[in-house]
Amino acid sequence: MVDAALQAGTAHRRSVFELFARRLSGARRYGVVVGTGRLLEAIERFRFTDAELAFLREQRVVGDQTLDWLADFRFSGHIWGYPEGEVFFPGSPLLTVESSFAEGVLLETLALSILNADSAVGTAASRMVHAAAGKPLAEMGSRRTGEYSAVAAARAAYIAGFTATSNLEAGRSHGIPTMGTAAHSFTLLHDSEREAFAAQVAALGTDTTLLVDTYDIDQGVRTAIEVAGVDLGAVRIDSGDLPVVVRRVRHLLDELGATRTRITVTNDLDEHTVAALAASPVDSFGVGTSVVVGSGTPTMGMVYKLVAHEDATGAWVSVAKKSAEKASVGGRKSVRRAFGADGVAAKELILLGDGPGGATEADDTAGREVLVPLVVDGVLQPGFTGLDGIAAARERHRVSVSELPLVAMSLTRGDPAIPTEYR
Amino acid sequence: MVDAALQAGTAHRRSVFELFARRLSGARRYGVVVGTGRLLEAIERFRFTDAELAFLREQRVVGDQTLDWLADFRFSGHIWGYPEGEVFFPGSPLLTVESSFAEGVLLETLALSILNADSAVGTAASRMVHAAAGKPLAEMGSRRTGEYSAVAAARAAYIAGFTATSNLEAGRSHGIPTMGTAAHSFTLLHDSEREAFAAQVAALGTDTTLLVDTYDIDQGVRTAIEVAGVDLGAVRIDSGDLPVVVRRVRHLLDELGATRTRITVTNDLDEHTVAALAASPVDSFGVGTSVVVGSGTPTMGMVYKLVAHEDATGAWVSVAKKSAEKASVGGRKSVRRAFGADGVAAKELILLGDGPGGATEADDTAGREVLVPLVVDGVLQPGFTGLDGIAAARERHRVSVSELPLVAMSLTRGDPAIPTEYR
Repeated sequence: MVDAALQAGTAHRRSVFELFARRLSGARRYGVVVGTGRLLEAIERFRFTDAELAFLREQRVVGDQTLDWLADFRFSGHIWGYPEGEVFFPGSPLLTVESSFAEGVLLETLALSILNADSAVGTAASRMVHAAAGKPLAEMGSRRTGEYSAVAAARAAYIAGFTATSNLEAGRSHGIPTMGTAAHSFTLLHDSEREAFAAQVAALGTDTTLLVDTYDIDQGVRTAIEVAGVDLGAVRIDSGDLPVVVRRVRHLLDELGATRTRITVTNDLDEHTVAALAASPVDSFGVGTSVVVGSGTPTMGMVYKLVAHEDATGAWVSVAKKSAEKASVGGRKSVRRAFGADGVAAKELILLGDGPGGATEADDTAGREVLVPLVVDGVLQPGFTGLDGIAAARERHRVSVSELPLVAMSLTRGDPAIPTEYR
Repeated sequence: MVDAALQAGTAHRRSVFELFARRLSGARRYGVVVGTGRLLEAIERFRFTDAELAFLREQRVVGDQTLDWLADFRFSGHIWGYPEGEVFFPGSPLLTVESSFAEGVLLETLALSILNADSAVGTAASRMVHAAAGKPLAEMGSRRTGEYSAVAAARAAYIAGFTATSNLEAGRSHGIPTMGTAAHSFTLLHDSEREAFAAQVAALGTDTTLLVDTYDIDQGVRTAIEVAGVDLGAVRIDSGDLPVVVRRVRHLLDELGATRTRITVTNDLDEHTVAALAASPVDSFGVGTSVVVGSGTPTMGMVYKLVAHEDATGAWVSVAKKSAEKASVGGRKSVRRAFGADGVAAKELILLGDGPGGATEADDTAGREVLVPLVVDGVLQPGFTGLDGIAAARERHRVSVSELPLVAMSLTRGDPAIPTEYR
């Protein structure tokens, strides 16, 4: 596309692309924008290396004019967007990219890839956090998604309210709190469960978590307390009918005098099983597979569409695909979240007009302006990337979710928690 | 775990880990092992950098003894496995890792991450290839999965029989044939559909694919042939009731004299919609979301378990977790695929004994030995990585699938195509 547009002389037409979701995948009540910080970091690094240019040349993917253009590429336009961690609804313009057509189209796959994947994890994680009703959740799903996606998933779950991850690289590169866990193999390696527990306590102290279900859970709990004493930090249970087993283990721990020893559970948990355990004496949850694969919705179905561009005369025209089931709304947009008198979010108002930063007919509409400038003239705005960006996104998510009507917390399939209204 | 085992003196016990799937996720009829080549390349590169060691030290994740051990780490054991592209069934030991406990346990997350993710894509892709009944399939899903997973997904789909990818990085790094596609934005950028088509044909020649459904499909087809002539390579349709639309477009193209112009379809296809189009005059398919997210099964649920180790006396013991619903079969294993008189695969025989390369009681069992040595004394065996590895895996997959009974091709949920039998 870039090649053809450069030859046709249309590649440099000023254009506005919009990234949005036509619907909330999985009939969720709200979506969570995650990945914006990673995307901005990726855009800042986005250059074509010699090796990449050589491949494009040798394979004749593009012509010389395009190769020259790619060699000099760096994004020089503007990007507005929903700040990371914010909730969103169908049609919400999560990113608005204004640049030449060629620059904007080049970001398409990168932007969709990062936001579709990270937001799927963040949206699922947010539901789990609510289901856990204040109890801490650790992300432990690295093994069930690609090796790089695993790091991004830990970051996304943390932004949505998880408290820790087992992925050490996410700790190193994103500052996410990490936690360890022993596997059954550690117990099986030793000549007895007792020897395994003794080895773990010797290395990590009594404030560790012993995995008690390799052989017999009741015996495992007794051995754990015999070895570590009543100050044992926690026991982990990874199998069985959890509501039943957890009660029995709590009872046994109390009987043994280990009243402060916590119980953490794992075992293919998702938001529904976490919710079902809310009334059980569980102290914390470890969630693996379901959070990293978006709990039934592994990708968000976001799209990236041209909504306006300059024509041959330099005049702006709004554009949109006309196909019935994939219609999009052309033109620049700004967004306000309207609240009721009770302070609860009531509507996502999408205002057609001059777009973010410009004047709109509905400029005086009440509510919170949602879009923020992320990149101005190719320059990253501060506060959205790195550790600061993650901390801000986590806090923003907490606040945004707290403003939603109660129906947003429903785990059943249904309509978005608030309607989207175009004006 | 490594920290505690080093302190306890058990970290160096010779151990055998096995990577397998307890069941076929999604009730598929067979699984496809994909990712082995990528894993082997990752194991060869697997070192701890100074920055990584500094993080582990500063965060007190592990003690000094472990830091020293990690600084010198490189995998020095043996790995046998199902060669990449091979089909598998519940219990199939896809990897058998023999090394010290510490070395083996360190590979766990990496091995599971790569194989779970890549095999999910490969398994879904294999079903789509069969559903397409010989017509070519292009992978176009980069935007619907993480930015690194996208490259791995293109590789996995190709091994399973796809013919091309839209991911240029997969072309560069894995030699996968690439293909381009124009988006609706390219049409919308220009002042008319005609100008857009003319720009594309001017840059890429008449043997290109014009996207004809931005406005009205019939008019789009007419304009495409007017601009490009009857030698236009192909038209792409990305919306509508495809079986109906495709027939109409074929009829129209023929009427216009463009009898050799091909029709390619996209639009959230999966194996079921591809199968439903088998009788339509479609010439090729572009599949996006569904293939990169495993078409309902985004991860394979593979696990990595200790099955044998040396005890304090140096004697080998077989071990297995005892919990009812997560039981595993301890001990070393070798595998033969048994065939019927008709040459069709009949059983996956898992032979308990001395494991791959060792003698077994059932050594004279007919059938094909499935496990191959991938790493010997830490040295990668040739033929499994890089471009050669991918070509071999694609061919192996083609052959392995062709040997399966007809029921393997069923797209409905059901039992594995052949039973797993332990001896």
